Amino acid sequence: MAIKKITAFAPATVANFVCGYDILGFAIEGIGDEVSVSFNQKFENTFALLSNHSELQQLPPEKNVAFEMVKQVQEAIGRTDGIHIELNKKMPLNSGLGSSSASAVAALVAANALYDNPLSTDQLLPLAMEGERLACGTAHADNVAPSLLGGIVLVKGYQPLEVVSIPVPKHWYCCVVHAHVDVPTRLARKILKTTIPLKEAVVQFGNIAGLIAGIYSGNDQLVSNSMQDVLIEPHRSLLIPYFQEMKKLALGENAIGFGISGSGPSVFALCKTEQQATQIADAIEQLLISAQIGRDVFVSRISTQGAHIL
Amino acid sequence: MAIKKITAFAPATVANFVCGYDILGFAIEGIGDEVSVSFNQKFENTFALLSNHSELQQLPPEKNVAFEMVKQVQEAIGRTDGIHIELNKKMPLNSGLGSSSASAVAALVAANALYDNPLSTDQLLPLAMEGERLACGTAHADNVAPSLLGGIVLVKGYQPLEVVSIPVPKHWYCCVVHAHVDVPTRLARKILKTTIPLKEAVVQFGNIAGLIAGIYSGNDQLVSNSMQDVLIEPHRSLLIPYFQEMKKLALGENAIGFGISGSGPSVFALCKTEQQATQIADAIEQLLISAQIGRDVFVSRISTQGAHIL
Repeated sequence: MAIKKITAFAPATVANFVCGYDILGFAIEGIGDEVSVSFNQKFENTFALLSNHSELQQLPPEKNVAFEMVKQVQEAIGRTDGIHIELNKKMPLNSGLGSSSASAVAALVAANALYDNPLSTDQLLPLAMEGERLACGTAHADNVAPSLLGGIVLVKGYQPLEVVSIPVPKHWYCCVVHAHVDVPTRLARKILKTTIPLKEAVVQFGNIAGLIAGIYSGNDQLVSNSMQDVLIEPHRSLLIPYFQEMKKLALGENAIGFGISGSGPSVFALCKTEQQATQIADAIEQLLISAQIGRDVFVSRISTQGAHIL
Repeated sequence: MAIKKITAFAPATVANFVCGYDILGFAIEGIGDEVSVSFNQKFENTFALLSNHSELQQLPPEKNVAFEMVKQVQEAIGRTDGIHIELNKKMPLNSGLGSSSASAVAALVAANALYDNPLSTDQLLPLAMEGERLACGTAHADNVAPSLLGGIVLVKGYQPLEVVSIPVPKHWYCCVVHAHVDVPTRLARKILKTTIPLKEAVVQFGNIAGLIAGIYSGNDQLVSNSMQDVLIEPHRSLLIPYFQEMKKLALGENAIGFGISGSGPSVFALCKTEQQATQIADAIEQLLISAQIGRDVFVSRISTQGAHIL
């Protein structure tokens, strides 16, 4: 009998959506991680990293988030089979594109499928958040939720956990640029002020409400006007070389908005057409080539599918 | 020839919508101010207060917001006719129901109509904000905008001024309770902290996004879960006697949400039916009767009409 082997893909994600710090994220198409699982006829789980990420190669398997997620599925459903886990990491680490989230979610979805899906996505989400805690110290949902569910996801709150899928405007495209510079998530969190002026918070309130209203009412101009971040971007953008230049290029090409993906260094431009996204991608790529900065550049729709079995 | 006399009504408003501090407000039906204007064949404007508000009676006419608004309309269109202004104030001062806003907006709409509407609502709104500045020191739009436009209004931002009408769920009713206690707007502003923890702001971000998403998607439960205010209510509610008891009564009757109207002392319950709003109004009224606190209690739809000529 052939051994049952299941492979899941979980997409990369753009968290924060400029003004929606820690509450909004969306999935992108084509980039993400794959995790394969199969019963190994042993009494313990085994792990293989199929990709060439030296930082992960040095990690003991039990510290890898994919390994941990499979274990959590087993604990949640009371199973102790040995599972062989293969992580095929297809995206860079510390990119600000939800790399650890994609690994965690792919592992959860694969392991759940191996057991014929005893757990609902509502049950998988808190496990994925524990993966985030393992990977970066805090159990945030703004990457794992869109990676799991697809689309644009609002993390309404944590007490209790409540996530809301926001409708995705079908014409939107994204240009995502990952400059090969090092901005560790922990540093990007540390650079933020822990207290903020109420007046600045109110500006952000207006932008958040405007962004959501703009999406629901199909008003790209309102979305554009609302993609302003007075709290986070002024600090984190300092860690990203050529941020202001890239932003100027994107907005000069009439992108709906431009900002940091998660905690960076990746940035994204939200665009009205694929052509616009491609033009912006080309312009930013030229800029980074001139600056001799390595980069990955993607043009993608917002993925509405979320994690799925391949 | 009969003298042309025009009377405008502008509705009372509930600002903040619990989590939307300084960015959201809505108009209510039935309560508001009336301003009548007519050319007086003199070389200056004249003013009469038709209601019995001693605080306003002591004010020189040129300090009254209705008087000032008529002047601003004249200045905006370059007219110097003498106008007689009658303010029929039908709502209490310092109630947290946008009393000065209603006077300002009614005066603007009446004066504009007297000149056959040379100014658009977009042009009237900044004038109304100047009225707010005169009346309470800051040129906020979260009362004047819904009073002028009707419905639920998002004040997206001030630079540039951008207001967005949010669709009003047709089944919603409001119970509004004005307890006769003194909470001056300036004190209610002063009691707030000028800096806040970023973590608390993030909780508010989620609630604001959830509120807007809930309204657009017709999800009362999401609206209910989002009508939480961790920033403002904990402070301002201390100024309102029996606030927690009233809130408990309203939520015990399954109101969608409950909170302070503007800076108080008025409070409101957002309800799914007129019957529910009436039950909550009765319960809160009984509570205030027992506590020997004077009160006005209203049950109203959210007004979609805004200021208009009678």
